[in-house]
Amino acid sequence: MSAASDGVVAQSDLERFADLTVGFAANVQRGQIVSIGSELGKEPLTRAIAASAYRAGARFVDVSYFDLHVKRARIEHADEDTLDFVPSWYGERVLELGRQRCSRIALTGPSFPGLLDDLDPARAGRDQLPALKEVGQVVNERTSNWTAIPCPTAGWAQLVHPDLEPEEALAKLWQEVLHVCRLDEDDPIAAWEARGETLVTAASKLSQRRFDALRFTGPGTDLTVGLLPTSNFLAARFETVDGVVHRPNLPSEEVFSAPDPARVDGVVRATKPLVVGGSIIKGLEVEFAEGRITRIDADENAEVLRGYAARDEGASRLGEVALVDGEGRIGALDTVFFDTLLDENAASHIAIGQAYAMCVEGEDVDRINQSQIHVDFMIGSPEVRVDGLQADGSSAPVLVDGAWQV
Amino acid sequence: MSAASDGVVAQSDLERFADLTVGFAANVQRGQIVSIGSELGKEPLTRAIAASAYRAGARFVDVSYFDLHVKRARIEHADEDTLDFVPSWYGERVLELGRQRCSRIALTGPSFPGLLDDLDPARAGRDQLPALKEVGQVVNERTSNWTAIPCPTAGWAQLVHPDLEPEEALAKLWQEVLHVCRLDEDDPIAAWEARGETLVTAASKLSQRRFDALRFTGPGTDLTVGLLPTSNFLAARFETVDGVVHRPNLPSEEVFSAPDPARVDGVVRATKPLVVGGSIIKGLEVEFAEGRITRIDADENAEVLRGYAARDEGASRLGEVALVDGEGRIGALDTVFFDTLLDENAASHIAIGQAYAMCVEGEDVDRINQSQIHVDFMIGSPEVRVDGLQADGSSAPVLVDGAWQV
Repeated sequence: MSAASDGVVAQSDLERFADLTVGFAANVQRGQIVSIGSELGKEPLTRAIAASAYRAGARFVDVSYFDLHVKRARIEHADEDTLDFVPSWYGERVLELGRQRCSRIALTGPSFPGLLDDLDPARAGRDQLPALKEVGQVVNERTSNWTAIPCPTAGWAQLVHPDLEPEEALAKLWQEVLHVCRLDEDDPIAAWEARGETLVTAASKLSQRRFDALRFTGPGTDLTVGLLPTSNFLAARFETVDGVVHRPNLPSEEVFSAPDPARVDGVVRATKPLVVGGSIIKGLEVEFAEGRITRIDADENAEVLRGYAARDEGASRLGEVALVDGEGRIGALDTVFFDTLLDENAASHIAIGQAYAMCVEGEDVDRINQSQIHVDFMIGSPEVRVDGLQADGSSAPVLVDGAWQV
Repeated sequence: MSAASDGVVAQSDLERFADLTVGFAANVQRGQIVSIGSELGKEPLTRAIAASAYRAGARFVDVSYFDLHVKRARIEHADEDTLDFVPSWYGERVLELGRQRCSRIALTGPSFPGLLDDLDPARAGRDQLPALKEVGQVVNERTSNWTAIPCPTAGWAQLVHPDLEPEEALAKLWQEVLHVCRLDEDDPIAAWEARGETLVTAASKLSQRRFDALRFTGPGTDLTVGLLPTSNFLAARFETVDGVVHRPNLPSEEVFSAPDPARVDGVVRATKPLVVGGSIIKGLEVEFAEGRITRIDADENAEVLRGYAARDEGASRLGEVALVDGEGRIGALDTVFFDTLLDENAASHIAIGQAYAMCVEGEDVDRINQSQIHVDFMIGSPEVRVDGLQADGSSAPVLVDGAWQV
């Protein structure tokens, strides 16, 4: 009578993953409402998480299953000028999740990769669901303990491992996800606490250097990202206004900050494909001048990202800069996962759109980027070095060959 | 790239069904938001309806997939005193659907029959989702054009046709559903218009008789249902406050009214099983005195209905009385469908809980039953005759052997 386990992943693994998600990453408290943002194709893990949350004393588990096929029907048939419409109750629900101090769990990973590929990317880019602009506000208000975790699907597995039979591909992706989530450790929580220490230490040292900017150089990339006077680097260990500690991403291998949205210059070549709203963007190259994007090119689906970057004033400026060292488990797999949560933790990255306010202090809170969107793209690799620039023009190595220099 | 059709139903049949649902039953207007209340297992028809709605000019299609497995986890693990909790945004969304003059489409039919059978029925009865009390208010305010249609699932098909192989069972249920929805007619809309005429005429004649009560007599049944002075009988052809004509049920073979909640007496034996909140209630017998339920017994799951009937003051009184003649297509199949939408249109029925205000006029609007619930159960069969009683004690036959006598 329990949820099917797709045949390729043991029910006990689903339950361990669910318990780590609920008890550690989201850190669900007794009496909380828990929102689970899922998609069709992710039912077994969704149900395991719901059961774990109820066992942990959740008052209610509110599951939303997004259906990319319905989004496809919209992009295909709806009137052009309605494609960015979102019903009022979508955003209102997110704001209530914050006001009512709920926990939020999101399951990432493409559900039906390629399903939107034959559609007009400009139309596809206007419909940004399931993303909602209100999520950024709730994150910055720190009123909900939340996490995002990867959830394998059959379609996603075939995208990552096209050379394998469908069942083998799904089994391999599950094994990789369990590995990068440290679920193959006897004590995954202890493993994450240890890795967290490394990242918190690196973040702290980096913050203390008070660099004026970071410079990324490598094949096709020479990008300078200005920092604000109080830009602090953080690891993905957050605390709500009520003192609930949670891990916003599982896995997480990054340290990140909020850059100066007015001082980003140069050109950057993405080192991994990225999935945006169901479309896969490959061969991405982006140019910045005085903080703003001046050019977006790609081998495939550049229009989709152009649509996002045109969303509002802040959508073409940077909201995040993040560094990933070579010690993480994802980069070592040398696999493109076509999922931002995994790929961004394989390599250093930047994001256009909304910044995280907890990265800065004082008047800098009003200087960080504001937007309805937040789209990460990966710009790091062992071939891309990162240097810290001081205001006097001097520079110091930060990350070379995947190793911290700070 | 289109939605899968389960292999057993042609994509063209799904599309005709979707177009009849959108264009005729719900009568979706250009620019409307359309809510689709679906369940896991109903993806192909859900997607076909979404596509049809967008082709018809919908501004947005808001699909909710309910997952009975998550409900099971709740009933299994959640704290007893949280089981009737519903997040504020669930009801608020329904009220917004009315305020914003949206269209609402619900897909009926059990998704995972038996999934709750081994759980405590008293606990199961406290969680009434996916039903929401706000729906009754929006129905009575006539602010949304809505419909409910049946959607076959593999599990439902096996319940109805346990003797057939899974694929055959699903094919047969689909064939039956397409038949009772008149989709095997060249012009289903014309067929429904003709059937509607018969029902509207019967309802009109019945209303004109101004009976004081209806009496149902048959095996195990002798029930007198008092009527209000303005209790009008209606067929399921509604009109919103904005003049949008819609069919709230497809199929519909009934004429119905709102009875006097203070004058129901006697005993009634259900003539079909009913599905309530995922549980199947068989062998149901209910006794009334002065309008209130005084006893609920059943061979299986009586506790579930007792839980519903204890929900509030009006939950143990009648909100609906409905008559079904022998000309409909469902009764002729002589099949128990375990789905209220189909089974209630095979036989005369009554419902505890919320009444439909459009059935009465003037001060009777304040006399009809009010409740957060509405649960139909079937009490008619060819063996159950219905007589109309006048205040002076005289009586006249209304429905005998399935034929109208009015």
